[in-house]
Amino acid sequence: MIITFLGTSSGAPTTKRNVSAIALQFIQTGKWWLFDCGEATQHQIMRSPLKVSHLEKIFITHLHGDHLYGLLGLLASRSLRGGAPDPVTLYGPPGIERYVEAVMSVSPVHLQYPFSIRVIEAGEIFADDEVTVICSPMKHRVPSFAYAVVEKERPGSFRADLAKQAGIPPGPLYGALKRGETVQLTDGTVIDGKQLVGPPQPGRKFVYSGDTVPCQAMVKLAEGADLLIHEATYADSDKWLAERSGHSTARQAALIAREAGVKQLILTHFSPRYDREEEHLLDELLAEAQREFPQTLLAADFFRYELKRSREKG
Amino acid sequence: MIITFLGTSSGAPTTKRNVSAIALQFIQTGKWWLFDCGEATQHQIMRSPLKVSHLEKIFITHLHGDHLYGLLGLLASRSLRGGAPDPVTLYGPPGIERYVEAVMSVSPVHLQYPFSIRVIEAGEIFADDEVTVICSPMKHRVPSFAYAVVEKERPGSFRADLAKQAGIPPGPLYGALKRGETVQLTDGTVIDGKQLVGPPQPGRKFVYSGDTVPCQAMVKLAEGADLLIHEATYADSDKWLAERSGHSTARQAALIAREAGVKQLILTHFSPRYDREEEHLLDELLAEAQREFPQTLLAADFFRYELKRSREKG
Repeated sequence: MIITFLGTSSGAPTTKRNVSAIALQFIQTGKWWLFDCGEATQHQIMRSPLKVSHLEKIFITHLHGDHLYGLLGLLASRSLRGGAPDPVTLYGPPGIERYVEAVMSVSPVHLQYPFSIRVIEAGEIFADDEVTVICSPMKHRVPSFAYAVVEKERPGSFRADLAKQAGIPPGPLYGALKRGETVQLTDGTVIDGKQLVGPPQPGRKFVYSGDTVPCQAMVKLAEGADLLIHEATYADSDKWLAERSGHSTARQAALIAREAGVKQLILTHFSPRYDREEEHLLDELLAEAQREFPQTLLAADFFRYELKRSREKG
Repeated sequence: MIITFLGTSSGAPTTKRNVSAIALQFIQTGKWWLFDCGEATQHQIMRSPLKVSHLEKIFITHLHGDHLYGLLGLLASRSLRGGAPDPVTLYGPPGIERYVEAVMSVSPVHLQYPFSIRVIEAGEIFADDEVTVICSPMKHRVPSFAYAVVEKERPGSFRADLAKQAGIPPGPLYGALKRGETVQLTDGTVIDGKQLVGPPQPGRKFVYSGDTVPCQAMVKLAEGADLLIHEATYADSDKWLAERSGHSTARQAALIAREAGVKQLILTHFSPRYDREEEHLLDELLAEAQREFPQTLLAADFFRYELKRSREKG
């Protein structure tokens, strides 16, 4: 999985940071999912290695403009660029369907691919053979959801080297052994497949907070995550601003990460007030977070992070 | 007046051109008006010399997304940036008010300044002491309007040098003479103010087509304009595409400019298909237009054009 940050500012864009959008790309298929879609997300995608035709799902955390206003433009442009008949599914809180319908009813858009909307409720909202997506309500000025993408455990890899050592000829038996079954060779030897299969590979867990004050629902959803992307709109010295507007400080996000026992924290959604390079204000946000949780990074637009499989699970 | 092109692509942005938006700035006051507001117009403004706090009016030609989707983001960000209590008035075709209300009802925006919407009909839609704004329905796939900003004639400038030569002492009499009145000096001499005032300065006329096929309504609105900005979505060799989608070719736009007797034509709203620099396709659009109307320029994002007062009208 590769995460690409497409927008890391809150409220309004700056010259260096666009408003919220995060891409989660699956390396094997090239398909990717988008979390939030602030204005000009399609412009950011165009400047990234992501292909809009490979976009499969869009998850919106809440209906504030800086997470939403790029949605229709992205959907429409995906049609115009042609050669993209694959369907897109949109997930979002109640109101998302009214938003899309209202805009489309006034400003007609003819999508050239199947498009569907799923209004989310707390709990599991998607599952296939590879992953499960869970959402959980957070605490913000409007209904806002955090999302977790939880990969399923994969069976361990078959140790062909050990099978050969045991004198098993490559052939149809390998299939049964790979599934961990017990087989009998023609000479009567009984082989337990489980002995020839490595330990199961734990799935990865990716969690994105959306906009929220620090809350126990976030700790619970993020428990043991390999990666937590948490909003850090303000510095802890501006905590009153965070409280007033339903946001978190960098320090608060770090405390959530620590309590949830995550492996890596990446902060995003910074107020434009800190985005003045010469003042190094964002370095201070990072420092205050790292004092509580050293495994913290600051996101930047176009920053790419590869989420690798861990050898052993938590 | 200074015109700044903020977006010159049609349909979807490219890496070099954003979707439609044009700023018309009044040099003396610094105030400016926006014509169309495609997605990421606020991003383009941020990269231009324009101040969002000085934005006074927004005119939307039609409700297609590439002319509209940046509207709410711009309005919201203008609030967030603070220090901008000046009102903004939005003008647009029927449906514009439903669009704004629908988006705001789902995705709440609290504007910190007075904001009003005027649904336009053909004819004069605004007038003050300086200018009149007229709109006229064009021919496109959806209702679409072109706009003309017509400056009023200004009285000629007072020739203080001639007044001194005539022996008139600087003082209160100058005011009456400047207004072209006739005055009597203390020695009985009668002076006709009109002799001391230069010829009236004709107003400038700025016209923007929005999206349209070539049509007589455009010729009429643009008649004698100092500047016509006309869409040229396609090359004339792709005329069938223009017809199919309700657009003009570069050559057609030039013929309109010639028929309307405008002084300067600037082409914009180019299909992304021509925006590949190495192929010089846009040079061909310019060449085909200049064959019909030599005073033609191609717009580019951030291109600024100063519309000067002409010495004599027509």
